[in-house]
Amino acid sequence: MQAETEPLKRGPELAPQWPRRPSSVLAGSREGLAAVTAALTGAVGSALAVARWPSGPMRAGTPADVLAAARTALGMEGIPTEGMGAEAALARIGKVLVEYGLHLSHPHAVAHLQPPPLAVAVAADALASASNASLDTYDSGPSAIAVERWLIGGLIELAGLGAQADGVLTPGGSMSNLMGLLLARDAAALRRGIDARRQGVSALPGPVVLCSELAHFSIQRACAALGLGEDAVRLVPTDARRRMRPDALAAILRELPPEHTPLAIVATAGTTDFGSIDPLPQIAAIAAEHGVWLHVDAAYGFGALFSERLAGKLHGLSLADSVTLDLHKLGWQPAATSVLLVSNASNFSALEREVAYLNPVDDADAGYEGLLGRSLQTTRRPDAVKVAATLLAHGRRGLGDMVDTCHDLAKHAEQRINAEPELELVAPAELTTVVFRYRCSEEPEREDEINGAMRRRLMETGTALIGRTSVRTEGPGSPERVCLKFTLLNPTTTPEDLDALVDAVLAAGRACTPRLQKGAA
Amino acid sequence: MQAETEPLKRGPELAPQWPRRPSSVLAGSREGLAAVTAALTGAVGSALAVARWPSGPMRAGTPADVLAAARTALGMEGIPTEGMGAEAALARIGKVLVEYGLHLSHPHAVAHLQPPPLAVAVAADALASASNASLDTYDSGPSAIAVERWLIGGLIELAGLGAQADGVLTPGGSMSNLMGLLLARDAAALRRGIDARRQGVSALPGPVVLCSELAHFSIQRACAALGLGEDAVRLVPTDARRRMRPDALAAILRELPPEHTPLAIVATAGTTDFGSIDPLPQIAAIAAEHGVWLHVDAAYGFGALFSERLAGKLHGLSLADSVTLDLHKLGWQPAATSVLLVSNASNFSALEREVAYLNPVDDADAGYEGLLGRSLQTTRRPDAVKVAATLLAHGRRGLGDMVDTCHDLAKHAEQRINAEPELELVAPAELTTVVFRYRCSEEPEREDEINGAMRRRLMETGTALIGRTSVRTEGPGSPERVCLKFTLLNPTTTPEDLDALVDAVLAAGRACTPRLQKGAA
Repeated sequence: MQAETEPLKRGPELAPQWPRRPSSVLAGSREGLAAVTAALTGAVGSALAVARWPSGPMRAGTPADVLAAARTALGMEGIPTEGMGAEAALARIGKVLVEYGLHLSHPHAVAHLQPPPLAVAVAADALASASNASLDTYDSGPSAIAVERWLIGGLIELAGLGAQADGVLTPGGSMSNLMGLLLARDAAALRRGIDARRQGVSALPGPVVLCSELAHFSIQRACAALGLGEDAVRLVPTDARRRMRPDALAAILRELPPEHTPLAIVATAGTTDFGSIDPLPQIAAIAAEHGVWLHVDAAYGFGALFSERLAGKLHGLSLADSVTLDLHKLGWQPAATSVLLVSNASNFSALEREVAYLNPVDDADAGYEGLLGRSLQTTRRPDAVKVAATLLAHGRRGLGDMVDTCHDLAKHAEQRINAEPELELVAPAELTTVVFRYRCSEEPEREDEINGAMRRRLMETGTALIGRTSVRTEGPGSPERVCLKFTLLNPTTTPEDLDALVDAVLAAGRACTPRLQKGAA
Repeated sequence: MQAETEPLKRGPELAPQWPRRPSSVLAGSREGLAAVTAALTGAVGSALAVARWPSGPMRAGTPADVLAAARTALGMEGIPTEGMGAEAALARIGKVLVEYGLHLSHPHAVAHLQPPPLAVAVAADALASASNASLDTYDSGPSAIAVERWLIGGLIELAGLGAQADGVLTPGGSMSNLMGLLLARDAAALRRGIDARRQGVSALPGPVVLCSELAHFSIQRACAALGLGEDAVRLVPTDARRRMRPDALAAILRELPPEHTPLAIVATAGTTDFGSIDPLPQIAAIAAEHGVWLHVDAAYGFGALFSERLAGKLHGLSLADSVTLDLHKLGWQPAATSVLLVSNASNFSALEREVAYLNPVDDADAGYEGLLGRSLQTTRRPDAVKVAATLLAHGRRGLGDMVDTCHDLAKHAEQRINAEPELELVAPAELTTVVFRYRCSEEPEREDEINGAMRRRLMETGTALIGRTSVRTEGPGSPERVCLKFTLLNPTTTPEDLDALVDAVLAAGRACTPRLQKGAA
C-alpha cells in the first residue's frame, strides 16, 4: 500500500547547532534520579555539614533580624541573569533552610499541628516530585492514580465508611473543609430545585452552616469563599469539655425559621487547641433527623484511629457525609496531605467536568479516566505516594504507637503542669495538646501580656517554640485569656525533654515578670 | 527570690519503658537528612536499578491492565497492621512509580503542560519536604517565608508590576484563578456597598465574568465554587489567531444591562491548546474604561518572560490587577508551583484573618507575622524553595534558553507536520504547542474517531504520549473536530526525536484506519 511504502519525510534542519543538554538535568530519568541523590549527598551534604545549625528549635533573634539575615544569605535581590549551577544553588538554599528555619525534630518545637515528618515520607515525596505525576487524567500519572486509589480505600476502611464511600487528596485541611461545604451547599440547593453550579447561590434562601464555637476558622473562611458569607455560620456553644452541645444544636435547628436553608452541620473531631471531639453519634442523629449534611472536621483527630487505645474517641465518624483528615498532622507527613472522604461517591457530582483536552467521552469509555471530577484542582501533586510509603513502612501499628507516645507525652506534660504552682492547667490532654497558663501573683492584671511575652522570649532566645491561644478559662461567657500550649507531635521526645521544656517556660515566665526582675535586681 | 531558688519539680515517672526511637526516623535533623539520602541511594537505588523501566514514555497496556498491575505491585489491600520497614517500602513504591508511571523526560511524552522537572528543583523540594515548614505564621517557617518573599519580589519585577504589587504561591493554576476571581468579586461587591465576606453574594446583582471562549475551564469552575454560578461567565469570541476579540469584549460590556455587575475580565496569556495570547494592552484599556478588574491567566504563558526572544509576547501583562502563573508548566518545577500576583497588596484584604492561635495582635506588633492573610490555605507547603533553587542555579537566561529550545521544537514540529500530506496543521506554534489532525482520505467521515483512537493506540503500545483536544478547525461556528497536540516542554528533546515521534503518529494513523488495514491484509 502507498501509505506503507512511501518514504518517511524529514523536517528541515532547523538548528545545526542544536543545544545538547545532559539528560541528568531532568529529575525523572535514571540519570536524573541519580543526579538528585548525588546533589543531596554531595553539595548539600557538604554545605549542611558546615552550616550553623541552631542548638534549639530555631535561630535566636527577633523576626526582623532572622528574616533579614535569611534574605542576606540568599545573596541577591531579584532573579539573577546568569545561574550559579545546581550544586552551588542547592548548597545555598539548604544553608538558608537549616540556619534560619525551624527544626521540628527538636523536642522543644511544640507550637503547631506541624509534625517533624518521617524520613520515609520525605524520601517517597522526593520520588513523587521526580515523577511529576498528576492525578487529573490517566495519562498524567497512572501509577500515582493507582496509589491514591489504594490509599483512599484504606482510609475509608479505617474511617468505617461504607462501600459507597470515596475520597480525594487536597492541598490542606482548609481546602478539604471548603470542598466538603461546597458539596453540602450544592446538594442542599438541589433539594430546593436550584442548580447552584450554574445559577449560583443568590436564589438559595438563608443558607446556614452550624458548627461549634471552637470549630476551625477555615469554616467561616470557606463560607466567605463559597459566596455564603461568614454570617451564614451559627456557632453552637460547647460544654465544659469543649465539645459541641447537642441540645444547643438541636434547639438552633428547631428554631430556624422556614425561610432558612441549613446546609451543613460541621462537627469537629479534634479541636486545634484542645483536641476535644464533638459527640459524633448524637450530632449525627440530629443531622439525620433534620436531613442536614454532616461534615466532620477530623483534620487533627483522625490520626487517633491508628491507635487501638484512642480509636474509640472517634466513634460515630462513620455516620458522616464528609470527613476532613490531615495526615500532615497526626500522620507525620510533610505538608500537604489532606483528604476529603465522602460517604457516597455520587456526592462528587458537583465537581465533575468534561473537558476536551482532558477527559473526552471516547477516552473515558476506553478507561482513560483520571480523578479530575473529584477536585477543584486540575494539575494535582501525587501526595498519596508519601503516605503509601509510610503506611507500608510503619504499618497501622507503627503509626498507632507514635500516636500513643505523643498522647503519653501530653499526659506527662499535664501532670507536670499540675504540679507547678506557677502554672495553671487550662485544658487536660485529650489527644496530644495541653493548654496552660503562667500565673503571676505579683502582677495578675498583666498575666495576658506576660504569657504572650514569654512565648516570644522563648523564640527570640531560640530556646523553645511553644504555642499560644485565647481561651475562656472561666467557662462560657467569661473573657478570653491568653494561654500557652504544647502541641506534642514528636515521637522521639522523652518525658525528660518535656521536663526541660517546662523548666524553660518557668524561667521565661520569671524573666518576663517585671516585678520579679526588679526584685531580683 | 523564691522563684529562682525553688528546686524544679519533676513529673511522675509515667513510662519506665519509654519507647526510644532513633532520631533518624524523622527527616529534618542532620541524621534524618542523611537517612533520607541514604534511603534514596540505597534501597530505592537498588530497586530502581533492577526495575523494568518502560522503553517509551509509559508502560504498554490498556488503562485497566496498567492500573490493575500497579495495584498488584503495591502488594496488599488496605493498610497493613505491621510495617515492612522504610527500605522495603521505598523500594516497592519506587518500583511502582517507575514501572507503571509516566516518564516525562522521554522525548515522546508530549501530552500535557506537565514538564519533566529539573533535578535541582526536585532536590530542593526534598529539602523543603524535610523542613516541613509552613507559610502561615512566622513560627511555622521563617526561612521559608524569606524565600517566598524573595521569589515573589523577583516575579513581580519580571511581570513589570509596580512597587505596590504582592503575591502568594497557591496549589495550582485553577486555585490561583479562583483566588483572583474571589478578590475581584469581593472588590466589586464592596464598590456596591456589599461586604461579600460577611453577607455572601446573594445581594450582588447579576454578577458577570468575561473571558474568551478559549479560556481555561477553571474560570467556570471557580465561578461555580464562588457561588456566582457558571452562568455568570460570558464567553467572548476569538479571532483567527485564537485571541479574544477586544471589539467583541467592548460590545458585551457596553450592552450589559445596568442591573448587572461585571466582576472581572479574564484575559488568557497562553491558551492551553494553542498558546495564543489575548491582546493584553487593548483589553486592559477596556477594563480601565469600565472600571472592571483585569485578571490575566498566564499559567502557561508567563514562562515566556524568561526568554528575551519571546518576552515581548506578554506585553501589557503589567496592566493586570491579578495574574496567575504556573512554574510547573514553563518553569520545569514539580507540581505545584502556581503563583497569584496582584498589582496592589491591599487587594489581599479580602483574605485577611485574625486567629488567636496563629496571629494575635501583640505577636503581629512584635513582627511575628506570616502569610496567612494572602491565602485560602492555613498550612501551606514551601513551594517557593524549589523555584528559588532553580532560579539561582540556572538564572533567567538558563530558563530562557530552555523556553527557546521548546519553542524551536514546536516550530520544527510545525514544519514537519506541514510537510506531511496525511497531517493537517490546525494551529501553528505560538509558544510550545502544535495542534494538528490526521487526515484520512479513505474514511473522512471517521476522522474524529480515528484521531482519538490513534492517540490511545500510541499509549497502549507505550510508544508515545501525545495530547488531544477539540477545535473548530473551520473558524467560528464550525463544528468541533478531534485534533492531536504536541506540548513540547522537554529541553533535552532534539529535532530527530520529534521526527521519530511524527513517524510514530503516522504509523498509528495508518494502523487505526480500517480500510487501509483491510487493503493491506
